[in-house]
Amino acid sequence: MKIPDFEYIKQSHEIIKPFIHRTPVMSSRNINRIADCEIYFKCENFQKVGAFKYRGATNAVQRLSAEESKNGVATHSSGNHAQALALAAKTKGIPAKIVMPENSPKVKINAVADYGADVTFCEPTLEARESTLAGIIEKTGATEIHPYKNFNVIAGQATAAIELLEEAEEPDIVITPVGGGGLLSGTSISVKNLSPNIKVFAAEPKGADDAYKSFVKGELIPSVNPKTICDGLLTSLGEINFQIIRDMTDRIILVNDNYIIKAMQLIFERMKIITEPSGAITLGAILQYPEIFENKKIAAIISGGNIDIRKLQYYIF
Amino acid sequence: MKIPDFEYIKQSHEIIKPFIHRTPVMSSRNINRIADCEIYFKCENFQKVGAFKYRGATNAVQRLSAEESKNGVATHSSGNHAQALALAAKTKGIPAKIVMPENSPKVKINAVADYGADVTFCEPTLEARESTLAGIIEKTGATEIHPYKNFNVIAGQATAAIELLEEAEEPDIVITPVGGGGLLSGTSISVKNLSPNIKVFAAEPKGADDAYKSFVKGELIPSVNPKTICDGLLTSLGEINFQIIRDMTDRIILVNDNYIIKAMQLIFERMKIITEPSGAITLGAILQYPEIFENKKIAAIISGGNIDIRKLQYYIF
Repeated sequence: MKIPDFEYIKQSHEIIKPFIHRTPVMSSRNINRIADCEIYFKCENFQKVGAFKYRGATNAVQRLSAEESKNGVATHSSGNHAQALALAAKTKGIPAKIVMPENSPKVKINAVADYGADVTFCEPTLEARESTLAGIIEKTGATEIHPYKNFNVIAGQATAAIELLEEAEEPDIVITPVGGGGLLSGTSISVKNLSPNIKVFAAEPKGADDAYKSFVKGELIPSVNPKTICDGLLTSLGEINFQIIRDMTDRIILVNDNYIIKAMQLIFERMKIITEPSGAITLGAILQYPEIFENKKIAAIISGGNIDIRKLQYYIF
Repeated sequence: MKIPDFEYIKQSHEIIKPFIHRTPVMSSRNINRIADCEIYFKCENFQKVGAFKYRGATNAVQRLSAEESKNGVATHSSGNHAQALALAAKTKGIPAKIVMPENSPKVKINAVADYGADVTFCEPTLEARESTLAGIIEKTGATEIHPYKNFNVIAGQATAAIELLEEAEEPDIVITPVGGGGLLSGTSISVKNLSPNIKVFAAEPKGADDAYKSFVKGELIPSVNPKTICDGLLTSLGEINFQIIRDMTDRIILVNDNYIIKAMQLIFERMKIITEPSGAITLGAILQYPEIFENKKIAAIISGGNIDIRKLQYYIF
């Protein structure tokens, strides 16, 4: 698969701008004092569907040809990408077929269905998800939009960093979460093209450390039995994403869940905003390793805010 | 007591601008769809100390003469005003003496003490609070800054509406919470001077309906045994505030706690921001009385976001 270059990313940004929110960049003097550094948070929890995923899905959908558009798009996802693709397709007025594991949270299923997507349920295994999706694509001719192993999705996710660096100029470090690697790979391309001296770091849950292991070993190592509260970061790194990350990311930092919880609490109490665990992991990394971040200027992406309000208590107590 | 005019309020705005956050005005397409109207939320939960109270406290402190400044400021408060005055005094480099009931939440006591204020505890009765404060003022010569029965505090609170109407131009209705009446009285002066055709509404908890009763009867009726989850709206309306509200506010709407909880949930889930119950009451009013707000353009103030994260579960379940 080709890797999107920065020209293509900038063009993607122009294409998606009419559809996405330009999310705010926020700071908290209190958190800066506690963490002893200067942090600029790109608040993609305020993005449409509550996550950066809407950028990539919108780019992928808007880039379809008239011919492709007729048959619509398809994916399998139980998370934010499902909602993102459903809304992006609805916005363009084309069909979306979403394969969801039958044990997906009802609230997520409802959200996807609310956007008018056609939901097909399957057993909650990767095999069932992939074979169900393949069947739908064969029958309908829909274009598959993978959540991260997709050229246009990567180019779309790369646009958050462009906006971030327009407001938080020349930070020492840009840091994003890493799960499948869509956001991290896109961010790495944008940042290194805008200013090669800025370091690009990723924060990964200690209990789902396949990106870290792959990065250290220099070859893709899949995720096995990941265990973390970051439900958005359970997936294995994609091959195309790994190629980009290997070349353009500077460091992957493993974060323990207790630091992620502490970060969620701080963001909640001091900034009055909601982040999902996967979105708080960047601050979690800063809290866990003060020696790395002390006195630095840091631009961090809060990737999403989709959390079941009833779950908060489990994290806090 | 004199009533601040709009020239004085505009001057106050210039005085406090270097110290306050210009908080964002946010909208949610989802909430607009659910409520069937167009709502612009002024997010004072993002204000310093997490509430609009910092505007009034800052104005009161910055307006002190050099002579008055030497002896500092004093107040009794268990809530957001205590933190606001403590930080405003710290920012000006003058002493603050805060009388707090001994049963105040530890987190609030710590916040006030963290800002360097001198905390004196007293029994949790209004009488004890007032007599303890009077003793401190006699001894130290500190200037009392009442949370709402104060000329400069009203002028400071009035500035949130100026910013709101700069971004949400010519709404049909501006709506604020009402407790002691500082925010509502200030808002009423600003809005009616900027554009007399805009209606100014207030939302008050059904279980703490002294402002409503006073407004209807045309004379001040104190609050007796208020019961509501809105801990910021338990106080009785001030006399000076009532005079302004009687003349310049168009309507006071009583809201049931269950609609306030529903509003908090919606703001949490759809806007990804934290509001305290008192801050969500304006949306609560809109949800409870769709017939009043349907198809209208509404500018609503989210007054604050200081909520104990561990309390959220009680509201939600």
